[in-house]
Amino acid sequence: MRSRALVAIDPRPGVSLDRWVNLISSLCDFVAGFKVGLPFMFSYGVSGLRALRGSCDRFLIADFKLADIDHVMVLTVSHVIGYVDGVIAHAFIGFKGGLEGLKEYLDGLGVKLILIISMSHAGSVDVLDANIDRLLWVADRLRPWGLVAPATRPDVISYARERAPWAKILAPGVGVQGARPGDGIRAGADYEIIGRLVTEAPDPLEVVKWVNEEHVRALRGG
Amino acid sequence: MRSRALVAIDPRPGVSLDRWVNLISSLCDFVAGFKVGLPFMFSYGVSGLRALRGSCDRFLIADFKLADIDHVMVLTVSHVIGYVDGVIAHAFIGFKGGLEGLKEYLDGLGVKLILIISMSHAGSVDVLDANIDRLLWVADRLRPWGLVAPATRPDVISYARERAPWAKILAPGVGVQGARPGDGIRAGADYEIIGRLVTEAPDPLEVVKWVNEEHVRALRGG
Repeated sequence: MRSRALVAIDPRPGVSLDRWVNLISSLCDFVAGFKVGLPFMFSYGVSGLRALRGSCDRFLIADFKLADIDHVMVLTVSHVIGYVDGVIAHAFIGFKGGLEGLKEYLDGLGVKLILIISMSHAGSVDVLDANIDRLLWVADRLRPWGLVAPATRPDVISYARERAPWAKILAPGVGVQGARPGDGIRAGADYEIIGRLVTEAPDPLEVVKWVNEEHVRALRGG
Repeated sequence: MRSRALVAIDPRPGVSLDRWVNLISSLCDFVAGFKVGLPFMFSYGVSGLRALRGSCDRFLIADFKLADIDHVMVLTVSHVIGYVDGVIAHAFIGFKGGLEGLKEYLDGLGVKLILIISMSHAGSVDVLDANIDRLLWVADRLRPWGLVAPATRPDVISYARERAPWAKILAPGVGVQGARPGDGIRAGADYEIIGRLVTEAPDPLEVVKWVNEEHVRALRGG
């Protein structure tokens, strides 16, 4: 079975790029892809991203949690076009002068847009989750390739799954943040995002293999 | 009078760092400060930020529109600590596992937190502005140094001014996005953020001087 695991690469300062290139090479055949955020970009820059891309040709996501006006989001993403397959932005930003321009830009380049409708931390309930219908309305109008909804609150995933059958759902929060591998898949997610549980493990490949087994079990209804 | 103008530095690809270092040096005595976003960081990296800091000792803001879990926001900001005086994040992220950890980290280092409660583009009304009370509640509980509210919708600034008398208010959207210099100040903002109107002008210093005059007029009730 194709893996449902996306590995989040969020380096602590002082770790060498080689460590990540080696890690990604070793996991390449066992995962669906990877995502990098701002800590990666600030550590290694665009050339670091190019090195990752060169070491494994899986789905690579720029997870900058974009939440700016269109002009600035497009300028930001223009630096990584050619190296990534998807870009994560916040549905919260709304259309006009915001996500509309980003979507148009990414569509023109064949890069997938992924919108966050809920997050994995507890504070997501303060504002985000109270607006789930509004955020799903933004998503429905924009029709991005994917949505982000948290494995830590599977009911949010189930709700999004029902309301947005057209979307791929990516579920973060597996591992250190509290969800167990399979929690997101069972609730209807297509992928689970796993970070420190894999990247800080003594044997990351063993963890990925175990996560994949848990996903198979979840898909079988276990 | 002390200037109320904050200049946004959002480079298009291909512009040299020298251009910005020179621009900032030439404006240094006439502005309240500067802000840089992700386009700047992706173009020039942390060393570029160090060069800006070295060329003008005004208030420098990292405007990364942070909107992630605490762990990732802190990792991101750790790269620029020592070079910036303030950091901009989104109020919609909420507390626990989010802004709470970021605020604690910044407080420990004497760096100011600035929270976005509304944005300058039209799409801000889709979700953000419909949640203004909720976002002001987040701000009130966290008590950051400043808030961001748009000069393009002065009523939002007036509302925030009334509800958060303890906060500095920074107003973007002046110039290319449609607000005139002084619109934000008149509505109760402490600073106006001006980007392309200054940075793409043939004579940026002349524009800044004109903006400062408009601010003086606005403060006199004109």
